[in-house]
Amino acid sequence: MSYMETLGSGAKIASRSLSVSDTLQRNKLLECIATALEKNIHSIIESNKLDLENAVKNDMSPAMQDRLKLDQKRIEDIANATRKLISLPDPLGQIERGFTLPNGLDVKQIRVPIGVVGIIFESRPNVTVDAAAICIKTGNAVILRGGKEAINTNLALVKVMKSAAKECGFDENIINLVEDTSREVANQMMHLNSYLDVLIPRGGAGLINAVKNNATVPVIETGAGVCHVYVDKSADLDMAVRIIDNAKTQRPSVCNAAETLLVHKDIADTLLPKVKKALDKNNVELFGCEKTCKILGDIVKKAVENTYAIEYNDYKMSVKVVDSTDEAIDHIAKYSTHHSESIITNDYEQSQKFTKMVDSACVYVNASTRFTDGGEFGFGAEIGISTQKLHARGPMGLKEMTSTKYVINGQGQIR
Amino acid sequence: MSYMETLGSGAKIASRSLSVSDTLQRNKLLECIATALEKNIHSIIESNKLDLENAVKNDMSPAMQDRLKLDQKRIEDIANATRKLISLPDPLGQIERGFTLPNGLDVKQIRVPIGVVGIIFESRPNVTVDAAAICIKTGNAVILRGGKEAINTNLALVKVMKSAAKECGFDENIINLVEDTSREVANQMMHLNSYLDVLIPRGGAGLINAVKNNATVPVIETGAGVCHVYVDKSADLDMAVRIIDNAKTQRPSVCNAAETLLVHKDIADTLLPKVKKALDKNNVELFGCEKTCKILGDIVKKAVENTYAIEYNDYKMSVKVVDSTDEAIDHIAKYSTHHSESIITNDYEQSQKFTKMVDSACVYVNASTRFTDGGEFGFGAEIGISTQKLHARGPMGLKEMTSTKYVINGQGQIR
Repeated sequence: MSYMETLGSGAKIASRSLSVSDTLQRNKLLECIATALEKNIHSIIESNKLDLENAVKNDMSPAMQDRLKLDQKRIEDIANATRKLISLPDPLGQIERGFTLPNGLDVKQIRVPIGVVGIIFESRPNVTVDAAAICIKTGNAVILRGGKEAINTNLALVKVMKSAAKECGFDENIINLVEDTSREVANQMMHLNSYLDVLIPRGGAGLINAVKNNATVPVIETGAGVCHVYVDKSADLDMAVRIIDNAKTQRPSVCNAAETLLVHKDIADTLLPKVKKALDKNNVELFGCEKTCKILGDIVKKAVENTYAIEYNDYKMSVKVVDSTDEAIDHIAKYSTHHSESIITNDYEQSQKFTKMVDSACVYVNASTRFTDGGEFGFGAEIGISTQKLHARGPMGLKEMTSTKYVINGQGQIR
Repeated sequence: MSYMETLGSGAKIASRSLSVSDTLQRNKLLECIATALEKNIHSIIESNKLDLENAVKNDMSPAMQDRLKLDQKRIEDIANATRKLISLPDPLGQIERGFTLPNGLDVKQIRVPIGVVGIIFESRPNVTVDAAAICIKTGNAVILRGGKEAINTNLALVKVMKSAAKECGFDENIINLVEDTSREVANQMMHLNSYLDVLIPRGGAGLINAVKNNATVPVIETGAGVCHVYVDKSADLDMAVRIIDNAKTQRPSVCNAAETLLVHKDIADTLLPKVKKALDKNNVELFGCEKTCKILGDIVKKAVENTYAIEYNDYKMSVKVVDSTDEAIDHIAKYSTHHSESIITNDYEQSQKFTKMVDSACVYVNASTRFTDGGEFGFGAEIGISTQKLHARGPMGLKEMTSTKYVINGQGQIR
């Protein structure tokens, strides 16, 4: 057995013990983990320091170093986020469908854990506990594969969680860390079909594409967001400016921030200068089509073909003037990553057409794209935002981390 | 653009027209297709003859030739199966969840088509129309890739369906056939992520594994069934014999037929001879563990390690005597394909343990595994039986051929 097979096989066996645990036991484990994290703050910080020292040696950017860093406050936040899961309703055991067949068979479709969930993520160590806690809440064993930059921190966090699991009477293999962070082992993980039921990459487009292109294990794609705001000619222009400004600048680094502004030609002359003025407060750089450049002048950089496919995650925005809602829909079909798009309009027919024809996880009328988020939707927890169409689409909460099975009770029925 | 990209791009554009069609329009198209198939019976049979001639030349087995063959009755059956979809409730537009956020945003999770569905299948030409019809009913465009043995028949069937689509005012590219049946083009199809939303292989284990191991497009795995019947010591033995006989012999070629019998040691002496007698009517060959061989004698072939992993699809069955329900559950965890398993018992606790811990799409108490079927479950249509845990598990009806999206209506909300 390879290293990953041993890990996978252990997780698979442990997942069976989880499948017969009840909500109270799993909630108790979440509380134990939160308490253990708080108790071990100092040793976790010590381990984190090793990673931070390496980060300095390896010239990691200050922003990345900050994401890697754990202090007392951050560990307490992580512990409290774990506690927050306790009060959320448990999706397991819910009967999705139940019916009796003409021959008397009672059929129930019951919500069950997925089994063993793999998470491949980059350097933020809060993901380590977050992801493990969501998996525990939903009865799944988890195999975590974080970046090598955070390996000491992750080892410390997983050690604490494993011993909490043991203390609560669970098999400690319900939580696993891939300690060998080589690419070779990551590749083994992507092909661990016998033991791994799903693989969720959390990170940048590079990571997501690597997993999507290599894995034979089923993947849930999350994240990439080239989100659009389209302003129809009937829009309330002040509302449009507020929404564009919010969607672009409230937090530009996240996937539900807007990257492209589409403007109906009839209002472009009036709207674009107002938008420019609002975005100037944050020095947003604009990349526009010919018409946009004509209206706003030389300050706008010229967009080229590829411009509209860019996810900036920054104070930058692509702009295009379009002839109609149809052209906006066509543009979105071509360039969108199917995450979140918004139409600003006061025209009933345009709003209907846009919400029906735009093929994205979340389609908004007269609101900012920034609401695409498990927290905002009231899910209480979020493992990521799915941009694919199978299994889960949009913010993934607890329910999306489960599967179903049919249980059929009979009295000797045969065909 | 490659051949597959052209096909995919056309299907993607056509799928948008489907997404704004209503149930009445799609049902009308199903009726048009049924009528057109009946009108063109003779030309379809002529095309089918070309394939049958090639089959004879290529020494195709008589059973395979029979599966390939279309006659008047079979085409009428296919037409009527298409008509049966019309009366089924349309899952599209159903609101799965709907709520208002504290800030006044109205959020609706709405059932929508998946988009473009790819089906890779082997030589049965009824799948061509079946799969296309289910896709139309659920608002999906479809790309069909059948075997080269049936290419002339498939060309004829798709031509008829395409002209029916045109007649009903649909883009004819909602139905597509991959006319180039080379492996190279099949491989292109498995990587057509820009246009294909899901790929469903329908056929033997070889095909399914090839798709699973190569595709970067999300795959729904269907089919393989190493199904188990476990007889607990508390079982009604006559019921057990009836169920075993039915699960094994009523139609051994299908995926929900039982392949392995597990028997509690306390009843093995009494039960196994009865089972043997019942299965002898169909000359079922048994492959047993040491204890089984001891009880039934030399007529039983000795099982080796690999025996229990075999999907016979034939009048053959593996048999093992086990010490307990726990051992049965362990055996199933090791060898099952997670399709369908049944416990025969009169003990409440064993029934609960088995249904909770056996991790398969369908888990039965006191019934034959042969009921795992969209038709039997009352779904009215079935595209296959999913043995994976994401998106769909068990028989896949119309609902499983759809996705969801969130539509959010606001009045200018920002974060």
